[in-house]
Amino acid sequence: MFDKILVANRGEIAVRVIQACKELGIHSVAVYSDADADAKHVRHADESYNIGSPVAAKSYLDQEKLLDVARDAGVDAIHPGYGFLAENASFAERIENSEFEWIGPPSDVMRALGEKTGARRIMQEANVPIVPGTTEPANGPEDIHAFAEDHGYPVAIKADGGGGGRGLKVVTRAEDVEELFKNAKREGEAYFDNADVYVERFLENPRHIEVQVLADHHGNVRHLWERDCSIQRRQQKLIEETPSPSLDHDVRVELCEAARRGVEEAGYVNAGTVEFLYEDGEFYFLEVNTRIQVEHTITEAVTGIDLVKWQIRIAAGEPISFEQDEVVQSQAAMEFRINAEDPFADFAPMPGTLDVYRPPRGIGVRIDDGVDEGDSIAPFYDSMFAKFVVIAEDRDEVIQRGKRALDEADIEGIPTTIPFHQHVLSDEVFLTNGHTTKYVDEQVTLGEGEGE
Amino acid sequence: MFDKILVANRGEIAVRVIQACKELGIHSVAVYSDADADAKHVRHADESYNIGSPVAAKSYLDQEKLLDVARDAGVDAIHPGYGFLAENASFAERIENSEFEWIGPPSDVMRALGEKTGARRIMQEANVPIVPGTTEPANGPEDIHAFAEDHGYPVAIKADGGGGGRGLKVVTRAEDVEELFKNAKREGEAYFDNADVYVERFLENPRHIEVQVLADHHGNVRHLWERDCSIQRRQQKLIEETPSPSLDHDVRVELCEAARRGVEEAGYVNAGTVEFLYEDGEFYFLEVNTRIQVEHTITEAVTGIDLVKWQIRIAAGEPISFEQDEVVQSQAAMEFRINAEDPFADFAPMPGTLDVYRPPRGIGVRIDDGVDEGDSIAPFYDSMFAKFVVIAEDRDEVIQRGKRALDEADIEGIPTTIPFHQHVLSDEVFLTNGHTTKYVDEQVTLGEGEGE
Repeated sequence: MFDKILVANRGEIAVRVIQACKELGIHSVAVYSDADADAKHVRHADESYNIGSPVAAKSYLDQEKLLDVARDAGVDAIHPGYGFLAENASFAERIENSEFEWIGPPSDVMRALGEKTGARRIMQEANVPIVPGTTEPANGPEDIHAFAEDHGYPVAIKADGGGGGRGLKVVTRAEDVEELFKNAKREGEAYFDNADVYVERFLENPRHIEVQVLADHHGNVRHLWERDCSIQRRQQKLIEETPSPSLDHDVRVELCEAARRGVEEAGYVNAGTVEFLYEDGEFYFLEVNTRIQVEHTITEAVTGIDLVKWQIRIAAGEPISFEQDEVVQSQAAMEFRINAEDPFADFAPMPGTLDVYRPPRGIGVRIDDGVDEGDSIAPFYDSMFAKFVVIAEDRDEVIQRGKRALDEADIEGIPTTIPFHQHVLSDEVFLTNGHTTKYVDEQVTLGEGEGE
Repeated sequence: MFDKILVANRGEIAVRVIQACKELGIHSVAVYSDADADAKHVRHADESYNIGSPVAAKSYLDQEKLLDVARDAGVDAIHPGYGFLAENASFAERIENSEFEWIGPPSDVMRALGEKTGARRIMQEANVPIVPGTTEPANGPEDIHAFAEDHGYPVAIKADGGGGGRGLKVVTRAEDVEELFKNAKREGEAYFDNADVYVERFLENPRHIEVQVLADHHGNVRHLWERDCSIQRRQQKLIEETPSPSLDHDVRVELCEAARRGVEEAGYVNAGTVEFLYEDGEFYFLEVNTRIQVEHTITEAVTGIDLVKWQIRIAAGEPISFEQDEVVQSQAAMEFRINAEDPFADFAPMPGTLDVYRPPRGIGVRIDDGVDEGDSIAPFYDSMFAKFVVIAEDRDEVIQRGKRALDEADIEGIPTTIPFHQHVLSDEVFLTNGHTTKYVDEQVTLGEGEGE
């Protein structure tokens, strides 16, 4: 096992990785920008190093600085968390070629799955259903027209290097193809340094369901069941739950087994997530996230398996110690993302100081966060500062417990997404599982007086 | 289901019951002494009533005042928590004869099990092994002599109305019998209004293992597996864990099934705990606690079953919805009692103000407490103000997580038992499961510099 790990991240995921290191007896090394000098992840780490500017490009995204710290601190391995460099295959490759271990998938697998058409071809090989569309980059707008003539509008033009909705253009009529094709290519070039695009059928009212996977260097590949992440605002998840209330047993097993097969085909190693869209009883592969995700907590809650520890163990060469049939969803869980945003003002980010921060406690409540009372939420980074995870026997009890926990929370100094969560937990659409990924954008309006 | 419940208690168990009420959609009513006017249980309840003096006998133990509040608030049922009136069969009987429901066992069952010789006879009927000894009150010192001649010294003279070590006298030689017999009778009279005593073989190095049970009004009786509570200081539990690391599968099943059988024989209803001593591979019935216990949390953690909610549901007439074989210990858990005591000064109670109170967070950590930062711990009541519950895959991981959580805790203003817990979690005797109920009193000495 490693003696020392560099946590190349900040906020709650850095705290999470540091906690895993402590429990494994591994020395943790934090990095921090000038804005994070007194941040919780720095207070909890065994050592910490300043890496300069609050601007992420000059600190948390600066590969040279991170590698310098790794050398100075004499670490054995680097954990990237999520965001920042976590899905950067070039950074992973640099680490693979250094004296350090990369706590993540092999860089060539990251690269192969990072190109969406390549990922789609791999999934087809493994007999995993993909959203109908092309599996090679489009040669020009004529390919889009041809696909739309066969399948009808709307269609989605997607950046091959994209993901999470970036570089995605929905085309509803033939006359828009030329312009949106150009826009998608331009965004792909700008965001992902890859101007290739491809076309898919556009699903109008899907659920977002993803499968957690874990694979080691010894050929063991396991799925850890699914998460339903359909409560999204502009492609940003706000509430995640497991099990998905939309799947029956047979579909659940088929979906999770497909995800497992897909990453096995890809030669995947370490923790990852296979995302699917689910509509009218059918599921379609969307993309693979080659990292730990924000919402990994709910999978940990229902399976009892510590995913971050397994990321570290797998990187250290340990084989997975459990069989597939030992991975059981023995409870239900929901995660509420607590963001420094004003849900009454179009979720505008509202950085500031946490004058009071008393997260809920008691049965079935897990809190992951990157702050303590008195801390400031800086404007430079993600506005999410805490995750409230609620665990109970079934979805009904999770919802009741979630309400109790959200009511108990006492946060003063900044607005948060708590009133949004309270609204959703009382909304018949969500309670009866009638929502899709369009629900928040199209059906949720917070009223006056909510959140009191 | 009830609409409104009176929580006839204070501190963390009152908060716990109020949380359960909230999740069930039940209105909660708190009571508070003058010392608790701004206590957390009052802040969290829907309504609250002052019941006077900080002296418990004039407030939390005052049956008239509690019944007055119940009538004034118009509640449907009364939850006694633990301690105070929870095991008072007369109070239970008064409530049974009132317009309110008692959230606890029937008063006649409480009374029958409260007399230790009677409880021993019931267990014998159900073929549950009891500690060798008499099952009728002793007529005089001659009965003690007679038993000791047959079984050898040491023997224990115990108050028939006792429990938790009160009214217990250990006799190591014949010449002490007369005096200790008289002392035990006097203590029984003083504490329990019952001068009867009986005699048992005294187990010198037992483990304390207890079994959680749950029974409804429809004849369903379930056990929820065991808890190992051998880390005790002068009969006061400090750390509890489940599963017990001392039991193999067969003994565990046999023990838990015996407990289930015993309470079924007693006609038990609601939540209860059957306590056993375990020595040299044999277990012996000790007593039944006819209430929810402090350490119920670890059973909830590993089974996923909310015991306090089930207490309420059962009192409302609901049948238990799960079969015995659905109750699975799917994880391991440990509870650390956080007391306002100085473990470096013989655990002297140290009431005071919680200037800083930041309990640990993150994966596998549940916090139950009766305080928030800035609150005072009053000298009038139990010094325990919080319980840190740690849940993980197995005992080893629980111990690593427990260390991490205890290290993360930031409590200032009063000394606590945290350094004691940290010592135990690093002590080879505990790590290798070599401890008995004598361990803390005989083998634990906190060194200088611990707890920094």
